Amino acid sequence: MATSPTTGTRGSLTIDAAMRRAFELAAERPVLGPNPRVGCVILAPVSAAAGTGPDAPRAVLAEGRNAGLGPHAEAVALADAARRGIDVRGATAVVSLEPCNHTGRTPPCSVALADAGVAEVVHSVADPHDVAAGGAAYLRGRGVTVVGGVRRREGEELLGAWWHAIRAGRPYVTLKTATSLDGRVAAPDGTSRWITGPDARAHAHGVRAGVDAIVVGTGTALTDDPSLTARTDHGLATDQPLRVVVGHRDVPAGARLRAHDGGELVPLRTHDPAEVLAALAAREVRHVLVEGGPTLATAFLAAGLVDEVHAYVAPVLLGAGAGAVGDLGVATIADAHRFTTSHVRRLGDDVLVVARAERPQEEES
Amino acid sequence: MATSPTTGTRGSLTIDAAMRRAFELAAERPVLGPNPRVGCVILAPVSAAAGTGPDAPRAVLAEGRNAGLGPHAEAVALADAARRGIDVRGATAVVSLEPCNHTGRTPPCSVALADAGVAEVVHSVADPHDVAAGGAAYLRGRGVTVVGGVRRREGEELLGAWWHAIRAGRPYVTLKTATSLDGRVAAPDGTSRWITGPDARAHAHGVRAGVDAIVVGTGTALTDDPSLTARTDHGLATDQPLRVVVGHRDVPAGARLRAHDGGELVPLRTHDPAEVLAALAAREVRHVLVEGGPTLATAFLAAGLVDEVHAYVAPVLLGAGAGAVGDLGVATIADAHRFTTSHVRRLGDDVLVVARAERPQEEES
Ligand SMILES: NC(=O)c1ccc[n+]([C@@H]2O[C@H](COP(=O)([O-])OP(=O)(O)OC[C@H]3O[C@@H](n4cnc5c(N)ncnc54)[C@H](OP(=O)(O)O)[C@@H]3O)[C@@H](O)[C@H]2O)c1
Ligand SMILES: NC(=O)c1ccc[n+]([C@@H]2O[C@H](COP(=O)([O-])OP(=O)(O)OC[C@H]3O[C@@H](n4cnc5c(N)ncnc54)[C@H](OP(=O)(O)O)[C@@H]3O)[C@@H](O)[C@H]2O)c1
Repeated sequence: MATSPTTGTRGSLTIDAAMRRAFELAAERPVLGPNPRVGCVILAPVSAAAGTGPDAPRAVLAEGRNAGLGPHAEAVALADAARRGIDVRGATAVVSLEPCNHTGRTPPCSVALADAGVAEVVHSVADPHDVAAGGAAYLRGRGVTVVGGVRRREGEELLGAWWHAIRAGRPYVTLKTATSLDGRVAAPDGTSRWITGPDARAHAHGVRAGVDAIVVGTGTALTDDPSLTARTDHGLATDQPLRVVVGHRDVPAGARLRAHDGGELVPLRTHDPAEVLAALAAREVRHVLVEGGPTLATAFLAAGLVDEVHAYVAPVLLGAGAGAVGDLGVATIADAHRFTTSHVRRLGDDVLVVARAERPQEEES
Repeated sequence: MATSPTTGTRGSLTIDAAMRRAFELAAERPVLGPNPRVGCVILAPVSAAAGTGPDAPRAVLAEGRNAGLGPHAEAVALADAARRGIDVRGATAVVSLEPCNHTGRTPPCSVALADAGVAEVVHSVADPHDVAAGGAAYLRGRGVTVVGGVRRREGEELLGAWWHAIRAGRPYVTLKTATSLDGRVAAPDGTSRWITGPDARAHAHGVRAGVDAIVVGTGTALTDDPSLTARTDHGLATDQPLRVVVGHRDVPAGARLRAHDGGELVPLRTHDPAEVLAALAAREVRHVLVEGGPTLATAFLAAGLVDEVHAYVAPVLLGAGAGAVGDLGVATIADAHRFTTSHVRRLGDDVLVVARAERPQEEES
């Protein structure tokens, strides 16, 4: 599955430039699936003879990024070097994420790097799993110099939902709403196609293609008969998210959700959002998109399990009809569920507001 | 009140550049008050001797803009020329609005221009009053060449609410809302300070300073005890809009609305938005800002009397509490009150959506 980058001369890079290159390699694949996207660049040893100090540009010996469930970025880079007969002893491995230290689908990268004789590892983001068991500690034990935190914020941003999901021990939750200016998702007779316009809908499809699972309640499944597929301008997206339906009722035999154009259909017969997330975490889902309806959205919000809101707002006033969310138990303004706007984007006549839950614990790190 | 621009050499301008200069002069004062803001530039006659054709730059003989209720831009420019002994016979007057043809607070500009011997008048926007009675017809009758429609869209935009108000025969109505993402203006206990943040509130004050009247219902007047003044960073704005309170109840003696820091208090004992606008039109109000509450907003919307919506939306979810608007009689999505987004602006954590009513009749003109 994994295709390592082509070999050849890659010039010389400073540590910082190598980290930016590692980010670039990582960003070649989407933020999807159970594993983080990671890039690795191996730089030649510091050599007085070659006139290179630790801060000077050094030759790029090898590069790698991971792909899907295949070998990790470090392993890809080491294999790249080995295939071309390049000696990496004394070299510096620049990696966008702290090397892993556990045997999962692949052997630990910490061991592979130390065995190969790499003298130094520079990483951006610390492994958000159990820190004590991280690759940095193992590598130091083997006499390898380890430097962490280079361009950490960028590195975290690059890891997206994965980073939050591993830290929180549950999938990252994005709640999508599509409402009128007065917060309604449908007219009194239940009609809602279309409150928002084509640009907003196309954007929402792009978002679907970037998550691991789409979640709706049985109400939406039965009323709207949605297909919940991710479509692009060119048709169905390559990666289709799981299609999760929450509630006790059955998805009928003829439902579009049962067609084979989308991701696996996962019915979850519960009303508890925490149970939904636990079931999806067990399937290594990192990012879920809750698309409604109002009952399910309200349950996730009331449980404090919404990390990010994608609110598509149309320049429309309805005056009546179902609201985007039901009673959250908020009695006074001070108890409002307040988010922090991360960005605002105009989409045709509509506006997308992306807002994130305030999480003080993230500020410290 | 009126200060005419300083005299002196103003170089040479083409007709098009003179129109842009006229816009610039007009824009020196805010879009406020009963009269439009207008600019006028008088260019030297076309002269074969001086080597100037109709499309070549010609010397600027005089300039003027109107101010408040004082003389019109054309009169100011003619006075500017006369004071300096400059002959405008055979000259071209470039004006952002068709010269007026009626005796109001000031004598007609059409007569003044023809009497002064101006050979040509170039204007941008046609007078939206009764067209047949316009200055262009009168001027043509006096043998003056008249060219209209130069940079018309820009000219209309510059005239703002005034242009719409004259065409519609009633003040232009901007409805302001400040809501949560789920369209609520208050929590269930009635608290609403503050849903939106300081940047949005500061912006809303700037908008107040640009309208002729602020309108609220007695509900808002009695519940919130607002002052409805226009404030800037430097304190109270110079021009304070009328403070209009709609409904049968009295504004109590001690209310902030009765303090002398704001515009005149205008109680209107009606529930009919059309009557409100007629009463304000009689006072030569061109632009009103309806600030709520929900009952009054609903009445204006239901009557089809909202030209523009300013929706401040905060990244907050409430789940319950009063909505921005009540029942509009919309039963199905096709009947929704749909506006056209004119611009979107981020204000701190909040978003301002400015959307205008679709008016097909404006498309033709
Ligand atoms: N504009 C938009 O953004 C948007 C998006 C989606 C849907 N909608 C509209 O929303 C409407 C459907 O609303 P809805 O609220 O019924 O949809 P829903 O939230 O999708 O489904 C509600 C159903 O899910 C089950 N459920 C799951 N978790 C629950 C919990 N914590 N508490 C209670 N029940 C839970 C219950 O069914 P069981 O009895 O099966 O357990 C419940 O009846 C449709 O008209 C649809 O068009 C609009
Ligand atoms: N966040 C925001 O954007 C915002 C803005 C403003 C207000 N608010 C909140 O809104 C709440 C007040 O709501 P409200 O709806 O009572 O305020 P309102 O619309 O200001 O006042 C309603 C009152 O105005 C009179 N009225 C005028 N025209 C009417 C009509 N066409 N039909 C019926 N009555 C008419 C009636 O009183 P009479 O009996 O005197 O005739 C009616 O009770 C307050 O809590 C305030 O904080 C929020």
